[in-house]
Amino acid sequence: MIPVAVIGASGYTGLELIKILSQHPEFELVYVAASEGGTTTDRLHPSLAKVVSVPVEKADAAQVASVAELAFLALPHKTAMGFASELLARDVKVIDLSADYRLRQETYEAYYCPHIDAKNLPEAVYGLPEFYRQKIKKSRLVANPGCYPTASLLGLLPFIPYIKEDAPIFIDAKSGVSGAGKKLSASTHYVNINENIFAYNPITHRHAPEIAEKIDDLFLTQVDVNFVPHLIPVTRGMLCSIYMQLDRDIDPAAVLNDLYKDEPYVRLRSEPVDIKSVAGTNFCDIFVHKEGKSLFISSAIDNLLRGASSQAVVNANLVCGLDEGLGIPLFAYVP
Amino acid sequence: MIPVAVIGASGYTGLELIKILSQHPEFELVYVAASEGGTTTDRLHPSLAKVVSVPVEKADAAQVASVAELAFLALPHKTAMGFASELLARDVKVIDLSADYRLRQETYEAYYCPHIDAKNLPEAVYGLPEFYRQKIKKSRLVANPGCYPTASLLGLLPFIPYIKEDAPIFIDAKSGVSGAGKKLSASTHYVNINENIFAYNPITHRHAPEIAEKIDDLFLTQVDVNFVPHLIPVTRGMLCSIYMQLDRDIDPAAVLNDLYKDEPYVRLRSEPVDIKSVAGTNFCDIFVHKEGKSLFISSAIDNLLRGASSQAVVNANLVCGLDEGLGIPLFAYVP
Amino acid sequence: MIPVAVIGASGYTGLELIKILSQHPEFELVYVAASEGGTTTDRLHPSLAKVVSVPVEKADAAQVASVAELAFLALPHKTAMGFASELLARDVKVIDLSADYRLRQETYEAYYCPHIDAKNLPEAVYGLPEFYRQKIKKSRLVANPGCYPTASLLGLLPFIPYIKEDAPIFIDAKSGVSGAGKKLSASTHYVNINENIFAYNPITHRHAPEIAEKIDDLFLTQVDVNFVPHLIPVTRGMLCSIYMQLDRDIDPAAVLNDLYKDEPYVRLRSEPVDIKSVAGTNFCDIFVHKEGKSLFISSAIDNLLRGASSQAVVNANLVCGLDEGLGIPLFAYVP
Amino acid sequence: MIPVAVIGASGYTGLELIKILSQHPEFELVYVAASEGGTTTDRLHPSLAKVVSVPVEKADAAQVASVAELAFLALPHKTAMGFASELLARDVKVIDLSADYRLRQETYEAYYCPHIDAKNLPEAVYGLPEFYRQKIKKSRLVANPGCYPTASLLGLLPFIPYIKEDAPIFIDAKSGVSGAGKKLSASTHYVNINENIFAYNPITHRHAPEIAEKIDDLFLTQVDVNFVPHLIPVTRGMLCSIYMQLDRDIDPAAVLNDLYKDEPYVRLRSEPVDIKSVAGTNFCDIFVHKEGKSLFISSAIDNLLRGASSQAVVNANLVCGLDEGLGIPLFAYVP
Repeated sequence: MIPVAVIGASGYTGLELIKILSQHPEFELVYVAASEGGTTTDRLHPSLAKVVSVPVEKADAAQVASVAELAFLALPHKTAMGFASELLARDVKVIDLSADYRLRQETYEAYYCPHIDAKNLPEAVYGLPEFYRQKIKKSRLVANPGCYPTASLLGLLPFIPYIKEDAPIFIDAKSGVSGAGKKLSASTHYVNINENIFAYNPITHRHAPEIAEKIDDLFLTQVDVNFVPHLIPVTRGMLCSIYMQLDRDIDPAAVLNDLYKDEPYVRLRSEPVDIKSVAGTNFCDIFVHKEGKSLFISSAIDNLLRGASSQAVVNANLVCGLDEGLGIPLFAYVP
Repeated sequence: MIPVAVIGASGYTGLELIKILSQHPEFELVYVAASEGGTTTDRLHPSLAKVVSVPVEKADAAQVASVAELAFLALPHKTAMGFASELLARDVKVIDLSADYRLRQETYEAYYCPHIDAKNLPEAVYGLPEFYRQKIKKSRLVANPGCYPTASLLGLLPFIPYIKEDAPIFIDAKSGVSGAGKKLSASTHYVNINENIFAYNPITHRHAPEIAEKIDDLFLTQVDVNFVPHLIPVTRGMLCSIYMQLDRDIDPAAVLNDLYKDEPYVRLRSEPVDIKSVAGTNFCDIFVHKEGKSLFISSAIDNLLRGASSQAVVNANLVCGLDEGLGIPLFAYVP
Repeated sequence: MIPVAVIGASGYTGLELIKILSQHPEFELVYVAASEGGTTTDRLHPSLAKVVSVPVEKADAAQVASVAELAFLALPHKTAMGFASELLARDVKVIDLSADYRLRQETYEAYYCPHIDAKNLPEAVYGLPEFYRQKIKKSRLVANPGCYPTASLLGLLPFIPYIKEDAPIFIDAKSGVSGAGKKLSASTHYVNINENIFAYNPITHRHAPEIAEKIDDLFLTQVDVNFVPHLIPVTRGMLCSIYMQLDRDIDPAAVLNDLYKDEPYVRLRSEPVDIKSVAGTNFCDIFVHKEGKSLFISSAIDNLLRGASSQAVVNANLVCGLDEGLGIPLFAYVP
Repeated sequence: MIPVAVIGASGYTGLELIKILSQHPEFELVYVAASEGGTTTDRLHPSLAKVVSVPVEKADAAQVASVAELAFLALPHKTAMGFASELLARDVKVIDLSADYRLRQETYEAYYCPHIDAKNLPEAVYGLPEFYRQKIKKSRLVANPGCYPTASLLGLLPFIPYIKEDAPIFIDAKSGVSGAGKKLSASTHYVNINENIFAYNPITHRHAPEIAEKIDDLFLTQVDVNFVPHLIPVTRGMLCSIYMQLDRDIDPAAVLNDLYKDEPYVRLRSEPVDIKSVAGTNFCDIFVHKEGKSLFISSAIDNLLRGASSQAVVNANLVCGLDEGLGIPLFAYVP
């Protein structure tokens, strides 16, 4: 068993990590930390009573290094890179669920804050296994993608070779409320989002550059990505509706099939995809429809799993040389 | 008081018509019909108990003509035009909520069925008051727009003069479940749509030609309209997210303001619009954001009111020479 | 037109008061106040844009008295009685939506805080029109009942004459989330209440003494009232399931009918009642079923209307000698 | 590995059985049947794509007997007993999820239909492990309890020894919509149950006699059980609020603790229980509060798991001499 740590246990993604890791056949969860220690996992998350009851400490890098070989960081951005640099210096592998190592330094600093771990940034690998699997296997620092970029990139990357020059991509993303985290806010008050839907930060949302940068990274292509997230009245799950223009006639289902047919966590669907078929799993379901040169792609994921915690464990499996499927949730919450 | 009839009282739009008309200061609801007669409005809709209890007949055109000057048809397409032609022949004005008179004959027949009232079709006026007000006033047959075209057209029409040539428009529409009507189906089973969202009939939905045709009608411009409707877990309301490309630099808020500032039922918003602020009303709320040459428009309506019944009453007011605001609901269901 | 004021405009019940009063045929809303002034009704509640846009002041009793004959207080308890005493001293009639004048002083002080307006407390009339109509008409200070007691009392009061001695009443109440107000809390976070239901403050909830006291007041009977409120994932509406034991054989539907047949806002139902048929209205729908000596009563109201604002306007109508039905909402939000 | 069959794979409980059994360490799912064969599990349940894709046959008892040692019957009542008698005759153990073997013959026939397998009925054991564990271990025919009786009995049985003579028990039960099954009906139309709640079959619901009979069976006590189920707008989960009167002063938490402290699937809570902490698991969470001689018990389960499929697998584990916890889901869907 490989000893691992979860730093940042109090949020939703921390909880999902605890749930996955405590059932994992090769990882042993030996250390759990939150911003306030002195509690246990089941006091922090009452649904874990009689299931997982282990101490929750106040995070300490030296302590992590003394017991764990790999750490999952489910921390706010900025806090994450401070902690990651300390862990890497102590030879602890890091799967970082924050934004801190996802972007080139100049992009990061334009959208977030000054980067304080420029030293380790270059060796970070973007943890989207379908496109970076070989690099992840050799990495000791994985930048786990955000939920919006995960769903968007898995849907649109296969079609970048066929995109019409200068034509923008429009991504209309719909996220469940758990994506906004546990923090109280007017947007997450039940009365405000129940029976409702609205866009937020249209086009200027900071996941757009993450998407554009990975397109450039993989295809050396600059694309104008217009990203508009919406909040919808569901707890978990995310649907991305992607609109592109093609420069030639292709069979889009065949393009997807060529790329993904052997991928364990991507499912091509002949009917429009829905959230419920993926909520609770690491799957990304994709549907595509072409009308003339216009392409519509619909992709669905569980924002907390494929968009965060279960993808993080796939990455950890790869980093540790394990079968990437170990412990990964496959059964949707349906019904 | 002008005597009016509602034909098709058992569905959601029929109910909304009854609610509005029974409070209307100038219309008197003298005749209510449904496919099965022999009942009353409050047996059909128990929420009307102690409020509106009038007989519901089996629809008969001669009987309508003997008591009413104007009829609202909340009937399925095809049934509607059969009934409308009989009413018009008897000098009863018609506000038709079906699709039967919304389209040119060839378009209608390509998407629906053979048209059986080609005689009256040419005189039908499209009931979007902001763009057809003067024609509606002189009409005796109004084709009330569908909910999707209403929300879409009010959002995108102001920008057609500035659209980039050959660039498609993408409309990502989200509709509450009441839009699917009362009929039982797998899509409307609570378990299937609760905590879920999915697209249906992507790009091939028959509201796309309705939108394209009205653009052509008003601006003599052919635009490639890509329309993708989604079902969302809310009962009523509709949000349309519209993505366009412009051919020049404009101030989109000023464009909207010039066109709509004196319109009583369009509200320009400086924050992304939401469903709850319009549910229960005849308002269409619109937000717009431009980034480079990409334009994002977000429009919200109540699908059963502005997208059907309250817009129908505005049209009836206009047809009858009344103030268009008589009896029109303005107060949202918020919270 | 009688000039009236709303003090406490920023919450949900304040919004409902504004909606009702701005359409009222005999009341003119001349003064609106909130804890922070310097705004307008439509900035406070964006859904009111293009509908009701009037200044919102910082509340001042002298100013109220100079313009209004009657004031609605939608304030937190304690604040309300401070303000009410000032208004009464200036001859302004008061409809108080808080708990401050609902209870006998000793009961109030046991469950809330020391009473600071003992002077006016004795003249306060409990604003449940079906049982206190004549007193309300002669009053200048009405204590508007809470939503839980309104739904509970209307259901159970008719059966108090037949209750088995010493048998407790159990009230299992279910409230929509708007009952918890606008304040952010873990309970109202969408993720916590969506797809969920839970009891809170079981049996010790402070609405139980309000119910017991009114039973005693009307029937000189002490009953053991066990009240358990639950939060349910709906925005508005309340259902109370009441369990009683009878001391004799009665026809419960006949008992209800005798009492309520001429009441404009109580509807007896032959099928179990639901929230949607009353949400948006001042109605209380009641269903009753007896099995042996066990009685089950189910009552439904809109918590913000019959449970607060529309009942307050009925009371104001009575206090001012108007027809009690003026301006009262009757049309449910169905569908 | 013990070969097992699932008969009735198309419904919600059939799906849950497939999900649990395909991950079970000692059971091998060798046969799956539905009313229509000729399909596969993932065509029947698209969320199973790339996870469980096995043929689905038209059910045949001889075929089951040729491959499986134990069968789960997720069939409608009446169909189930027909099939069970054939399987038992062929020495296949049966876990029946229907009502067919839960009741004494006379009770069954009063509430359902004539019993057609009176031969096997006497040997059926009621599959509530906390109270029938030793009998289940020796059984070859387990009548898996319904969801309502499971949640109710686990909450109230501990207090039967202390119940006041002749005092009725009131059970106010709230069930998610999945409890109504996949069948389309007005009650399960999204528009009718969203933002709504209502009772159905009050007091006359047929789970009341199941509860009363088990109380009599275990305690030789006849209790007047008044059971009122409500439908609530959640997909899965059930909350039972139970109201009892005691004949003496007890410490209810201590009573529960004495009985359940070593039970793996019952959790005693010091705060009112909620659905979300148990949805996705086999747990029953219980909270209790006493005020004078009135007792309030709140119990929560997942209606499809503890109320059906996971409890069925616990029973199968016991029948087959396995550790009862094998394969049983423990991690709630929270958030």
